[in-house]
Amino acid sequence: MQGTIRTVISVDLTKCARSQHVLHNRLHPELLPVASVHPGEVFRVECVDCMGGQIANNDSAEDVLNVDLSQVHYVSGPIQVEGAEPGDYLEVEILEIQPLQGHEWGYSGIFDVKNGGSFLYDYFPRAAKAIWDIEGIYASSRHIPGVRLAGLIHPGILGTAPSQEMLHKWNHREAEPLAKDADKITALAYLPDEKGSFLGALENNPAAASKIATEAARSLPPRENGGNCDTKNLSRGSRVWLPVYVPGAKLSVGDLHFSQGGGEIAVMYLKNCAYH
Amino acid sequence: MQGTIRTVISVDLTKCARSQHVLHNRLHPELLPVASVHPGEVFRVECVDCMGGQIANNDSAEDVLNVDLSQVHYVSGPIQVEGAEPGDYLEVEILEIQPLQGHEWGYSGIFDVKNGGSFLYDYFPRAAKAIWDIEGIYASSRHIPGVRLAGLIHPGILGTAPSQEMLHKWNHREAEPLAKDADKITALAYLPDEKGSFLGALENNPAAASKIATEAARSLPPRENGGNCDTKNLSRGSRVWLPVYVPGAKLSVGDLHFSQGGGEIAVMYLKNCAYH
Amino acid sequence: MQGTIRTVISVDLTKCARSQHVLHNRLHPELLPVASVHPGEVFRVECVDCMGGQIANNDSAEDVLNVDLSQVHYVSGPIQVEGAEPGDYLEVEILEIQPLQGHEWGYSGIFDVKNGGSFLYDYFPRAAKAIWDIEGIYASSRHIPGVRLAGLIHPGILGTAPSQEMLHKWNHREAEPLAKDADKITALAYLPDEKGSFLGALENNPAAASKIATEAARSLPPRENGGNCDTKNLSRGSRVWLPVYVPGAKLSVGDLHFSQGGGEIAVMYLKNCAYH
Amino acid sequence: MQGTIRTVISVDLTKCARSQHVLHNRLHPELLPVASVHPGEVFRVECVDCMGGQIANNDSAEDVLNVDLSQVHYVSGPIQVEGAEPGDYLEVEILEIQPLQGHEWGYSGIFDVKNGGSFLYDYFPRAAKAIWDIEGIYASSRHIPGVRLAGLIHPGILGTAPSQEMLHKWNHREAEPLAKDADKITALAYLPDEKGSFLGALENNPAAASKIATEAARSLPPRENGGNCDTKNLSRGSRVWLPVYVPGAKLSVGDLHFSQGGGEIAVMYLKNCAYH
Repeated sequence: MQGTIRTVISVDLTKCARSQHVLHNRLHPELLPVASVHPGEVFRVECVDCMGGQIANNDSAEDVLNVDLSQVHYVSGPIQVEGAEPGDYLEVEILEIQPLQGHEWGYSGIFDVKNGGSFLYDYFPRAAKAIWDIEGIYASSRHIPGVRLAGLIHPGILGTAPSQEMLHKWNHREAEPLAKDADKITALAYLPDEKGSFLGALENNPAAASKIATEAARSLPPRENGGNCDTKNLSRGSRVWLPVYVPGAKLSVGDLHFSQGGGEIAVMYLKNCAYH
Repeated sequence: MQGTIRTVISVDLTKCARSQHVLHNRLHPELLPVASVHPGEVFRVECVDCMGGQIANNDSAEDVLNVDLSQVHYVSGPIQVEGAEPGDYLEVEILEIQPLQGHEWGYSGIFDVKNGGSFLYDYFPRAAKAIWDIEGIYASSRHIPGVRLAGLIHPGILGTAPSQEMLHKWNHREAEPLAKDADKITALAYLPDEKGSFLGALENNPAAASKIATEAARSLPPRENGGNCDTKNLSRGSRVWLPVYVPGAKLSVGDLHFSQGGGEIAVMYLKNCAYH
Repeated sequence: MQGTIRTVISVDLTKCARSQHVLHNRLHPELLPVASVHPGEVFRVECVDCMGGQIANNDSAEDVLNVDLSQVHYVSGPIQVEGAEPGDYLEVEILEIQPLQGHEWGYSGIFDVKNGGSFLYDYFPRAAKAIWDIEGIYASSRHIPGVRLAGLIHPGILGTAPSQEMLHKWNHREAEPLAKDADKITALAYLPDEKGSFLGALENNPAAASKIATEAARSLPPRENGGNCDTKNLSRGSRVWLPVYVPGAKLSVGDLHFSQGGGEIAVMYLKNCAYH
Repeated sequence: MQGTIRTVISVDLTKCARSQHVLHNRLHPELLPVASVHPGEVFRVECVDCMGGQIANNDSAEDVLNVDLSQVHYVSGPIQVEGAEPGDYLEVEILEIQPLQGHEWGYSGIFDVKNGGSFLYDYFPRAAKAIWDIEGIYASSRHIPGVRLAGLIHPGILGTAPSQEMLHKWNHREAEPLAKDADKITALAYLPDEKGSFLGALENNPAAASKIATEAARSLPPRENGGNCDTKNLSRGSRVWLPVYVPGAKLSVGDLHFSQGGGEIAVMYLKNCAYH
């Protein structure tokens, strides 16, 4: 209907992320599309936070301390783009991003040096958390009184699916530095790992899911397909051109941030967000 | 609940504006508050378009030609601000404005020279209408192909209630120029008029409503209380200080625009909008 | 030299506009280029105000009352763009616009109903003027105390030269409405007029200048070539594509505004401005 | 004169920073004011880059490798604010910031792990440099082809002078963590150091300069007085309130950046900039 924007992916924030097949947390060409859009269509996607609900709106950092990082990042998709073919570029324009009504909150956290860590781990080794109330363009936190931030809501992750060849290239390319960084707290990539993997609708087929989990790329590094760019400059009003590696492009989006500095010294996630 | 923004006024876009007592289209100190907020509270208000649904999402300008202008502007409120007293200033900050989900459209129109008219009536005398689909920060219209506008959504009207004295001053002050402009197409103000008047919850008391309608100010001119400022610079991120003339301030808001030029040569209204 | 932006047109604000051959106030294919740039070059252009210095930084509106409107708009150029050919599109990006150092002021004025007039001439018939001090992103006026405006500095005029055919089309097309509007205060176009014409370097050849002045288009309406668009949305950060009608494109720019509403009900000009 | 903004501090980019007494690189209550402004005055300040010209517009990172970090940050001032007294707050509004005409370039660099280093020193240990041409709101670099950045020009440093008590507090407070971090590449503060110190007009009195250099604070950490905030959110349009600790406030400003991420992983400096 004219005057209505179609919601192509809906999430239920009262349910476990791992029960919602419109989500996934690995990159692989064989993921099953959960929605389909026309070229030129304006559509709406709902997302959960990158941790899939592991972090609660409370006053304890226990959840950050014990967060299962093997599960990041739960993103929404893949979305099939009709007619997109390998070799094309997919033009994606972000027209608006807002928190889901009734869930206007997010969190910032410092990972514990024993579980994730940060670039400043020697200064801030312990897990910490602040809950932020999203008040339109601003956020304030009961844990950091006197501060109000103006943010630029943005998806940390926006990317197409890799082809099998591209996936192979990534896994091969990242093995070397990972080997070298194995004992570094600040390692920035991880090889495929079945643990924590969630592959959306493929989970209906445990054998296939298990096989694909052993080769699907982790979502941490940004790569040729876009991915975890984590920049507030990729916000509403932005247009990006993403290479298409598989038929239908298989676009995924998620890891919404209320705002973010340039160095991700600390991170603030939006728990859930609509995007179109 | 933390992480949830309270909606203090809800509207139903499938119902007639005149059946919804959270709306009104005249200014008067005795209007009955329909909601109450604390100082410092972040809240959400839903609005209808200024015409109260008279303009439809279709391809004919008949509705603009025949629009009942005595009914403008349907705004939401009044909202009681706890503790606000005459002599205070009410600080209002606009944190976000968005179209109501499922109703992402608006219209621009040219009033017919026989019903409203415009500053350029000698160049554009006939009623015209364009429907705009609101696509996040942009709007496009099937009636004006090839054009996409980036807008600054804003409430045309944001104001407190006048005191009886202030109301008297307005009605007296505007009588003279109105007399002089009586035959002008471009007259910018109108004196109180029972015709078309809608006074919200007061309508339950027809005798009171009728009396008040004969003295309540029309909403067209901006005045000491704020009111119909119609500027896109009063948008999200804006903070204004409005004088308080009656206990509780009785704040009203509405007449949402997707965007607007500086001279209101033509007008684009957002059919309905949330505001907080 | 790297790290230096080339100034391709300089003006002298202490001299009469009509003595500076880098300026002109009519549109014609045979105007002589006063500068040349490479495709892709970042360059700087200095401009005078559209009235060519007729309006002074003082407290009297005499100059507005008596302003010679046949002289508008003095713009800088034409600039030859190497390699540009008819049929091309010239991509122009505005990278920065600032007032010339030491001349940080502008004016807003209301033309008298007897000399120019305005859309609101029946409300504001008399000449008026306010001088504004440009203070970075803000302007304030000693003539309008208590007001400070944030502006979007922009060139009112940015356009390429017409071909002879295009020029003929304009003059023919505008004759009809002009005939109809002849007695209207709000006429928006004028036919070629030798009076007030200034054709830059062509003025060295009075015979040629005289002939060309009788056919050169006035600068008031925006046309196919860009021209007097008068929109603050065409500001720094904007990129426009202008059609090329003559070899070298012959780009002209000027009529700098500190800001402007959407309807040019009143106008504020920047006296002088650098542009690149 | 109306329409002219007064330049209260001028620099000469062809001369050595250490020969210009309008500059200094340490914080101390006894620094000599080099300019004076009225409350409410709009003024203009010229600045050099934080390194005082040590980094050249060329293609070698030798200068970054060997840069004398004991000389940072050369800032302009102090500026005496008439009537400002300890206990006041100084309201400073940034109205515009632009590179000095003819010097539209800056640099970004990675300090060598042997001289300064960075948070990512284990990934990027070697000195590196890129020269950026400032092209209005954008910068591009011949050393990083294909990239163009939109920046938010801002002063890294904007602060008032400390009182003797405040200075003592800083030096005492920072001694402990400095002792602990002594061997860390990522140490963020340094105690007073005569080496590299430059105290502006006090340099005319070598004995006084020498004494003051032994107690004047280094400029690296932001402190109660403002100082090295290094945030692009403190840009044109920003207003800050800085506490006044000494009569006249003694405002200093400098360390202009074309832009900056949130973590200063890498840094881009603007060589020189005007500010008002």
